[in-house]
Amino acid sequence: RINPDRLWDSLMDMAKIGPGIAGGNNRQTLTDADAEGRRLFQSWCEDAGLTMGVDKMGTMFLTRPGTDPDALPVYVGSHLDTQPTGGKYDGVLGVLAGLEVVRTLNDLGIRTKHPIVVTNWANEEGARFAPAMLASGVFARVHSLDYAYGRKDPEGKTYGEELKRIGWVGGEEVGARKMHAYFELHIEQGPILEAETKQIGVVTHCQGLWWLEFTLTGREAHTGSTPMNLRVNAGLAMARIMEMVQTVAMENQPGAVGGVGQVNFSPNSRNVLPGKVVFTVDIRTPDLAKLNAMRARIEKEAAEICEALGVGCAVEAVGHFDPVTFDPKLVASVRAAAERLGYSHMDLISGAGHDACWAAKVAPATMIMCPCVGGLSHNEAEEISKDWAGAGCDVLLHAVLETAEV
Amino acid sequence: RINPDRLWDSLMDMAKIGPGIAGGNNRQTLTDADAEGRRLFQSWCEDAGLTMGVDKMGTMFLTRPGTDPDALPVYVGSHLDTQPTGGKYDGVLGVLAGLEVVRTLNDLGIRTKHPIVVTNWANEEGARFAPAMLASGVFARVHSLDYAYGRKDPEGKTYGEELKRIGWVGGEEVGARKMHAYFELHIEQGPILEAETKQIGVVTHCQGLWWLEFTLTGREAHTGSTPMNLRVNAGLAMARIMEMVQTVAMENQPGAVGGVGQVNFSPNSRNVLPGKVVFTVDIRTPDLAKLNAMRARIEKEAAEICEALGVGCAVEAVGHFDPVTFDPKLVASVRAAAERLGYSHMDLISGAGHDACWAAKVAPATMIMCPCVGGLSHNEAEEISKDWAGAGCDVLLHAVLETAEV
Ligand SMILES: NC(=O)NCCC(=O)O
Ligand SMILES: NC(=O)NCCC(=O)O
Repeated sequence: RINPDRLWDSLMDMAKIGPGIAGGNNRQTLTDADAEGRRLFQSWCEDAGLTMGVDKMGTMFLTRPGTDPDALPVYVGSHLDTQPTGGKYDGVLGVLAGLEVVRTLNDLGIRTKHPIVVTNWANEEGARFAPAMLASGVFARVHSLDYAYGRKDPEGKTYGEELKRIGWVGGEEVGARKMHAYFELHIEQGPILEAETKQIGVVTHCQGLWWLEFTLTGREAHTGSTPMNLRVNAGLAMARIMEMVQTVAMENQPGAVGGVGQVNFSPNSRNVLPGKVVFTVDIRTPDLAKLNAMRARIEKEAAEICEALGVGCAVEAVGHFDPVTFDPKLVASVRAAAERLGYSHMDLISGAGHDACWAAKVAPATMIMCPCVGGLSHNEAEEISKDWAGAGCDVLLHAVLETAEV
Repeated sequence: RINPDRLWDSLMDMAKIGPGIAGGNNRQTLTDADAEGRRLFQSWCEDAGLTMGVDKMGTMFLTRPGTDPDALPVYVGSHLDTQPTGGKYDGVLGVLAGLEVVRTLNDLGIRTKHPIVVTNWANEEGARFAPAMLASGVFARVHSLDYAYGRKDPEGKTYGEELKRIGWVGGEEVGARKMHAYFELHIEQGPILEAETKQIGVVTHCQGLWWLEFTLTGREAHTGSTPMNLRVNAGLAMARIMEMVQTVAMENQPGAVGGVGQVNFSPNSRNVLPGKVVFTVDIRTPDLAKLNAMRARIEKEAAEICEALGVGCAVEAVGHFDPVTFDPKLVASVRAAAERLGYSHMDLISGAGHDACWAAKVAPATMIMCPCVGGLSHNEAEEISKDWAGAGCDVLLHAVLETAEV
């Protein structure tokens, strides 16, 4: 078993870097706080005897050698970056649990045939630079390095510039590494495990996603002196599209979600009807056909809504992944580990996207989930218990050991 | 008659300060560009022999003495500040037309009994610091100086700090001046004069306004892993309120408007349902009872919408003025001037708020309007013709002359 106190202390120490405003974290990708978090993680890993490699996307790979020089490594990871008002566990748990697995093996003097590589994927959140899971996406050849380097934050700074600025451009070609297997422990970010009082989620699938960025073009005009019938009101079109997305999601129950997290009005002045409104629709479901049908319906109905108001409507897909089926053998080893350790468990579909989804394109991959209070995540109030974290990490240890072979 | 070329040249010279991105201006209140515009206007006025007074709100008063030491001055003014993506004429025309009136009187060697004071009111737009017409509001004792000094821009800087920073805190008590009359020439900012092919709008009234700032509190949560039935979706509540405001405005036709210019999502991340949504509803109509009934209905229905979604709803009125009836004698003198000069004219209700609305609280006041292309304003593409500007300024000259007495 792992040491839950040590794991918890590391979580709390990491949470001191990039503090939020309400007890959580703001350690967004490629900020100074991100750099500081990386250095702390690096120092812990070096203390544990791991050797670091960094790729051109800034992803950190910390290797514990195996006994067989020809055996491909077992990767264990997640991400240390956070949302602007993020929690202390989303991503961080998976990275530090990987480190805790290594520390435990060190304590017990256990060597594995396959090397173990603890991984901190860059820009998982996609809050500062869309899309999410950017570095693992380049690793899995879903995106080109040029595409990723050119992604812009809201201030117009590019991923490439900012990675250089914080000093974390590595020398490794992205995706050059070959994986024997990939494991990721993550908080559920949803309410199911807690509601079902299960300690472990055995993640069999991940639902697919589309991020549709709408750019609506209205006519900037005075809110007071422009009669209702002469308005080209992009804000009203947005409101109608938001309601329509809600309807589409509700009509695709069970197992579909749809919402809007980001809205930017321009010029965003109280007495000016917006000339431009940009917002992103996020839709997800585990069913590929349904996912694409929802997208098609939303684009069609949005175009109709805009046409009726004379508003221009452009849509760009700024994030996407198809539903993922995780590797059955690894899934079985996670289930068996939970069983062996006496932890209550259930099979689960991940509601959020994870680096494991992209890793699954290039290697056998799976995930382990532990509950979070009230299903709350992407919120500074995100909370888990030390026991939950410890149970998840124990299962990770056992599944990794089985796969990396003693 | 005034010199339309000289007026136009001054308009074009002022437009060089704080250029926009699409041919208009970004010369927002208390920015460096505002300070530069003020200095240029001051130098022009001093060249025309005027003496400057500045009050504690930063409003500029440029005086041409009268022949009777006991006669109160006739004020002529508007504002030089602009929207973030504003036009070259909104406000600026009224200030520079005041200067052109003085220049014309100088050329013709005409002295008036009453002094004439050309006025540049501070922060008319209210884009950077709500509410609009802030300095004239303090002048008319609608707001206290403390209230005005404490108003914050989106970065949290206060009006008081920023006025000091740009060096335009004057010594005069705000509102200490007494006015014989107040005239303001302004572009219509609406489509009526152009549609009716009239050169002059004789402004009899101004419609009233409420700016209702809604702060909706939802629960920040993951857009992917939070099931639809567990969402506390403040963005959806906003969409429904926007649609409801549209309905309320449409059901109060003719002569009512309602819309939303400003929206801020927090944390504004694509995969986070917003925990907080702040937006401002702008409603107007010339009918006081209708205006207040619209406000009451919007607040009531917004509360219902939010309650149904479990969303918290707080409303603050961040801008307000009752409908205004301008001084019948001054209105008649404007109408007579247009008639005498042979300009086509019609009576008009101002759709936008103006400093004249507050001046009307403390003095006989009225306005003159000239058309603008397509009714477009609060848009960098705002346009007028030299002839329109010249006609408006001619009428202003005649009305001022009649009121200031030769
Ligand atoms: N786990 C997580 O929050 N990932 C970000 C990508 C997503 O929105 O699903
Ligand atoms: N004229 C003008 O745009 N004034 C700003 C106040 C308002 O929104 O009416």
